[in-house]
Amino acid sequence: MSWVTGAAGSLFDLDNLPYGVFSYAGQEPRVGVRIGDFVMDASAVAAYGGDPGDGPHLAEVWSRPSLNPFLALGREAWDIARDWLIEVLGNDVHEPRTAAHLIPLDRVTLHLPFEVADYVDFYASVQHATNVGRIFRPDGEALTPNWRHLPIGYHGRAGTVVVSGTPVRRPVGQGRPGAGEARPAFGPSRRLDIEAELGFVVGVPSTQGDRVPASAFADHVFGVTPLNDWSARDIQAWEYVPLGPFLGKSFATSISPWVTPLAALEAARVDLPAQDPEPLEYLRVGERAGFDIAYEVLLNGEVVSRPPYAAMYWSPAQMLAHLTVNGASLRTGDLYASGTISGDERDQRGSFLELSWGGSEPFALSDGRARTFLEDGDEIVLRATAPGVLGGRIGLGEVTGKISPS
Amino acid sequence: MSWVTGAAGSLFDLDNLPYGVFSYAGQEPRVGVRIGDFVMDASAVAAYGGDPGDGPHLAEVWSRPSLNPFLALGREAWDIARDWLIEVLGNDVHEPRTAAHLIPLDRVTLHLPFEVADYVDFYASVQHATNVGRIFRPDGEALTPNWRHLPIGYHGRAGTVVVSGTPVRRPVGQGRPGAGEARPAFGPSRRLDIEAELGFVVGVPSTQGDRVPASAFADHVFGVTPLNDWSARDIQAWEYVPLGPFLGKSFATSISPWVTPLAALEAARVDLPAQDPEPLEYLRVGERAGFDIAYEVLLNGEVVSRPPYAAMYWSPAQMLAHLTVNGASLRTGDLYASGTISGDERDQRGSFLELSWGGSEPFALSDGRARTFLEDGDEIVLRATAPGVLGGRIGLGEVTGKISPS
Repeated sequence: MSWVTGAAGSLFDLDNLPYGVFSYAGQEPRVGVRIGDFVMDASAVAAYGGDPGDGPHLAEVWSRPSLNPFLALGREAWDIARDWLIEVLGNDVHEPRTAAHLIPLDRVTLHLPFEVADYVDFYASVQHATNVGRIFRPDGEALTPNWRHLPIGYHGRAGTVVVSGTPVRRPVGQGRPGAGEARPAFGPSRRLDIEAELGFVVGVPSTQGDRVPASAFADHVFGVTPLNDWSARDIQAWEYVPLGPFLGKSFATSISPWVTPLAALEAARVDLPAQDPEPLEYLRVGERAGFDIAYEVLLNGEVVSRPPYAAMYWSPAQMLAHLTVNGASLRTGDLYASGTISGDERDQRGSFLELSWGGSEPFALSDGRARTFLEDGDEIVLRATAPGVLGGRIGLGEVTGKISPS
Repeated sequence: MSWVTGAAGSLFDLDNLPYGVFSYAGQEPRVGVRIGDFVMDASAVAAYGGDPGDGPHLAEVWSRPSLNPFLALGREAWDIARDWLIEVLGNDVHEPRTAAHLIPLDRVTLHLPFEVADYVDFYASVQHATNVGRIFRPDGEALTPNWRHLPIGYHGRAGTVVVSGTPVRRPVGQGRPGAGEARPAFGPSRRLDIEAELGFVVGVPSTQGDRVPASAFADHVFGVTPLNDWSARDIQAWEYVPLGPFLGKSFATSISPWVTPLAALEAARVDLPAQDPEPLEYLRVGERAGFDIAYEVLLNGEVVSRPPYAAMYWSPAQMLAHLTVNGASLRTGDLYASGTISGDERDQRGSFLELSWGGSEPFALSDGRARTFLEDGDEIVLRATAPGVLGGRIGLGEVTGKISPS
């Protein structure tokens, strides 16, 4: 447990240690490590006494305004860095020289933690895909014939990925023509929604033309960040045939300011749900390919859903193998997300589309008001926690966003 | 006309002056301007006597290994730069000090000319969309109900955009299960294809939440580059419902090494074909919103198609307005492409999918061999030319790619 005041037993103890980018007192943004309710100025501490482990130049890469240079170093450097952080923040002999570089969280500005290279969004929850299929295509099969054979995904807009706390302006766009109308509807989206997801952050690139096997997941992927894939369902429903979602998604995607390394999720690894039919060979993974991460979706402070990541059908290692099976290369900063996390129960659905069944079944808040989609001024918070190796839980950071008018 | 040997009257005379990134003799890559069959080392020439026009620091931005810093300067700087280039390469008083910085094209290496931020691919040819609809969905309407109301688009993979000349490895992936088979097909794509397109390169960014009107097209878009959106039709056909193309496209997209500024296309501007129904207000454009650019598609040196860009239904200004109508922001280096260019005639189709009608109508080459999709070792060249302001034609650079085995 950490010697840092308030960290021991919290969601941000030594078994977590996520990375972000912060600025403080008018200085340039640089890498920070969260411990309790403090941010450790990582490069300032690493600069003492040379680089840890005689290896990676951590003081240098941590002085940069994004995690990308650190992410590019690879697994061995990530492990050295983590061991060193556990020593520095766990052994109180380091307190005297380190305490001055701990800044209270409420005094820093948190920035987008990495430069997003390509952003891919998957569709890996069988419950979510089934719900959406039933709502959007009530006369057809809920799951398309390909769904159980491959993790369906598509590219999203990397340039509009924003850090938690960034306001989200209600998008304007076209929707289906109304009954008897020849022209499409046009105006502010009336079916603005969230998608509670988990994002995976790629550190180590690959070569174009080569495949990355599922077994190399932890060599390429550095860590995870909760993600809210804001979605305008009316825009999406009109535009998505035949080339997929575009403006219904591209206006904003929010991520946590914190990227939690895979190493912090060792105690959260669980078996995947059974996959039937057995996937093709390049998509096979072993035991404990899933993650037990518990989500809470809060609307204006009230929990409206508790999506369970452990229910996801496709694992992130399978998504990675699929993403690259055609020779598509990875770059440092690539972000790929799980798709909406939904469980079997109604109160485990990770979107308002599902919670309100396409708007046809409003759900009640504690104030008695019936809700379907997002209203101006609504604030969404995604919280995600997982078992930590110290026996408690670790926090993956919150993803918040408030809707501003068009 | 230019004093540079061989440039006058060529496809790369003073009315063209496209920009690229080259390296030579082991030096770092930097910006070059093509004139005739030479590359002018732009920063070396700009460094004489201060910056042109007392304005932009062209010697500095042109010393960089990508066009992005120059692209970010904006319209006024682009115009100053062009006027200066026309003076330097058009007035032979500049020959003595400039000639030493002209390097024969066959002695340089050409690089990807800009760092691609987000890549969006549209679907703007009514002939192409109709052909594909008939081939992929023979029992339904060829055009989806949204097609004439908005320029359909989707995000592609920015990280696999490569410069002309880069070999393209045949992708591996899943296809539909064969007749009587429960499991998907898996292996090297058997329906590897091209898409002859035009790419638009964004220079000036926009703010997230704001729209970019169609009228601001030339304030944000710097120029154009021909583009080959390589496509694996068997992978695409199996994966694309419901979220659109993914691995069928993401393995490679090739662009010309040259980005031709919009200013060079003034004589190529033409009216769009009639749009019926009239688009919504944010998608309205005036006269001369189209471009008369003639393509040739060569397979192993033989012209197999001549797609006419002038036939495109949606203009690039409309694509830009649509891309941002929801508040999605632009970044310097964003690339958006037209989608396959196909004309009314069979020999104007910009993909082998259409030329061979889904493989069912092989077309003959001059050696008598019947062809459908790409074979290993095939080399594709896209050539594009347009009327120039000097009365001749300008070249947009070639996009070449050779298929290597899986």
